[in-house]
Amino acid sequence: MKSAEIGIIDVTEYMHAVGKRARAASRLINRASTAHKNAALLAIASSIDTKRNELMNANRVDLEAGREKNLSAAFMDRLELTPARIDAMINGLRQVADLEDPVGAVTDLKYRPSGIQVGKMRVPLGVIGIIYESRPNVTCEAASLCLKAGNAAILRGGSEALFSNQAISECVREGLSAAELHVDVIQVLDRADRDAVGHLIAMNDYVDVIVPRGGRGLIERISAEAKVPVIKHLDGNCHVYIDDRADLEKAVTVVENAKTQRYGTCCTMESLLVARAVAQQALPRIAAKFCSHEVEMRVCIEAGRIIDQALPASEADWKEEYLAPIVSIKVVEGLDEAISHINSYGSQHTDSIITEDFTRAQRFLREVDSSSVMINASTRFADGFEYGLGSEIGISTDKLHARGPVGLEGLTSQKYIVIGDGHIRT
Amino acid sequence: MKSAEIGIIDVTEYMHAVGKRARAASRLINRASTAHKNAALLAIASSIDTKRNELMNANRVDLEAGREKNLSAAFMDRLELTPARIDAMINGLRQVADLEDPVGAVTDLKYRPSGIQVGKMRVPLGVIGIIYESRPNVTCEAASLCLKAGNAAILRGGSEALFSNQAISECVREGLSAAELHVDVIQVLDRADRDAVGHLIAMNDYVDVIVPRGGRGLIERISAEAKVPVIKHLDGNCHVYIDDRADLEKAVTVVENAKTQRYGTCCTMESLLVARAVAQQALPRIAAKFCSHEVEMRVCIEAGRIIDQALPASEADWKEEYLAPIVSIKVVEGLDEAISHINSYGSQHTDSIITEDFTRAQRFLREVDSSSVMINASTRFADGFEYGLGSEIGISTDKLHARGPVGLEGLTSQKYIVIGDGHIRT
Repeated sequence: MKSAEIGIIDVTEYMHAVGKRARAASRLINRASTAHKNAALLAIASSIDTKRNELMNANRVDLEAGREKNLSAAFMDRLELTPARIDAMINGLRQVADLEDPVGAVTDLKYRPSGIQVGKMRVPLGVIGIIYESRPNVTCEAASLCLKAGNAAILRGGSEALFSNQAISECVREGLSAAELHVDVIQVLDRADRDAVGHLIAMNDYVDVIVPRGGRGLIERISAEAKVPVIKHLDGNCHVYIDDRADLEKAVTVVENAKTQRYGTCCTMESLLVARAVAQQALPRIAAKFCSHEVEMRVCIEAGRIIDQALPASEADWKEEYLAPIVSIKVVEGLDEAISHINSYGSQHTDSIITEDFTRAQRFLREVDSSSVMINASTRFADGFEYGLGSEIGISTDKLHARGPVGLEGLTSQKYIVIGDGHIRT
Repeated sequence: MKSAEIGIIDVTEYMHAVGKRARAASRLINRASTAHKNAALLAIASSIDTKRNELMNANRVDLEAGREKNLSAAFMDRLELTPARIDAMINGLRQVADLEDPVGAVTDLKYRPSGIQVGKMRVPLGVIGIIYESRPNVTCEAASLCLKAGNAAILRGGSEALFSNQAISECVREGLSAAELHVDVIQVLDRADRDAVGHLIAMNDYVDVIVPRGGRGLIERISAEAKVPVIKHLDGNCHVYIDDRADLEKAVTVVENAKTQRYGTCCTMESLLVARAVAQQALPRIAAKFCSHEVEMRVCIEAGRIIDQALPASEADWKEEYLAPIVSIKVVEGLDEAISHINSYGSQHTDSIITEDFTRAQRFLREVDSSSVMINASTRFADGFEYGLGSEIGISTDKLHARGPVGLEGLTSQKYIVIGDGHIRT
């Protein structure tokens, strides 16, 4: 929505107008048929395909401004819309159109002794506020998931991506119109002021949930200030524990993959725990792998006696999410110490055990209090696509509502439905 | 936990000690077997049965203090522990022992194209803080549900019920010990200062969710100040809509029950909507029922032309939760206006349509955005027992996590589990 269009400059009025429109639009998209929603998704994809030049031009304005502001290379990379990234946006929209519509699904409908039938129906959350940083393609991803799940959305991207986001917003509006859905279903804010975010996260009457996507700073600030519930992702301090009944071949393969397949993701292993009984056997092989990848090892005293090339770990290392070619390594007595270490120092994100022992695997699965708990698998699998959610709006480290990768279902809720035939309570 | 026992007077230290103990206890109860948890519930029931005199004596101290403070008759009634109420506590504990244990249930475990199996496991939330007012029996109810769902709990009852709550707490501790579970699983605060609540709702590291139970004032204050997520219940402005294709016999029966079976509950009907085409037929019969129950009617202009004994409704009446023998009545054009009125003025609690029309019933079910949506049934059915949850910790008017009556399942969450055989991501 353009502020100019509604002739409002004051940010409070502007945001309340946005909120009011979103709430009204949510009442319409809530009841839209699956066919309509899919038609809109495909129309948005077509519009983006047709307007590639406009998108690239708008992005160029943002990139130039970014260069003038001396934004970091990593920031500029995230900001850039390449032809391949535009293709990915288009494919993403088509994939979301292919996903099953979660809305309206009725489960557990049963007769009760009173004669009424009671069940649950999956329903949209209502209005979702998404706050993100530099990547303009998030505009498209977030819009598609909110729309398919029957929600209205208010999107607030980074101020550095303003022109790119507005260009994408135009395509989204075109697609919604083409499918005869209300354009206010997806509103992309065109104001860069921080006050807009302050209002967005406090408008309880108009916004049902906030999903912040970005660095820890952004997420902590929003969580601290929000009056609207937040689905959030904080740290990913993920562990692999090599049990003394592990198959060491599997252990070495999984650990190498969990640490080195990609360093910057939240499900990358940051800390390795090894049972004392197999430390002498396992650690030299693993250390050799890490050396070949130039991964810095920060280790406990005991592991330091086995690995030559390592630095001593400090207490802070056990809590650290490096997002870099660094790993902490600790020798533990066995399963109990491993579980207790993970539950104390971990971030409840993703943790894996390598073992052939059935009972220990079962105990790890039940007792580790993380959003994803794994047996003999790389932590790198903690991802919406790998889990079969199709696409994800983020990975939640909260315990309420949604834990782990959040897909379409995480953007919905369930209400009770009751069917009677004139039944009354006695 | 007695403050004297740990030799701490400062409320910050006291609450942090409580939180730390709760977190540690949650790691133990998390993995307790169903048999152990049930044994504890039955042992608590026995302990209460044995200590009836102690409970009554402690309650007498609270009642006397209450009389000196001139607490209202309604308040004194809620505060009192009668032999029947003690029986109800004992039966409640036994019923919770009979409920199925939700913890550890694995669902949707499926192979993915990568070869890993992905599923979900139901797990306890961790530490639950419950804040309630005068009724001491809530101590027992809340303890039993938290315990069965594998959570540790910190219970903070009203200061007027301090002695009663401590006596119940003793029974809970005895029962936990008898079943060899840690006594810190259920901690009942023995401090009456408000600061304790301030800490409880802000201790993110130690508390996973807060459930306030009480009047609107308490719940609003806690929601506004809490840093920990809150599962809350606000208004219950419930509607019945009589469609012009309603069976009027059913309509009259349901409306009478929904309004008059109990006036003070959150699922009592507060507002009646009637389709214009049947208003002339339906309203005189319904008004006669209301008159016989001495229910005050506040009506729109159109309904006022049909019903003689009514007062005119103001705009505020459409939003009001009376919790009293008062009802607002409005004539509407039909289904669309009814849905739009409910979604605008309602409190998203419980709303019911009376109709024989299949398509309209389906539309009402899908389009009314409330935690319970009903067809041809009294709103009074919105209750954990009636829904088959066994028992409820409260009724949530939130959209995230739990909507409607919250039973054992609402005190749990789901984590992802992943099973591989040395699988890595490529």
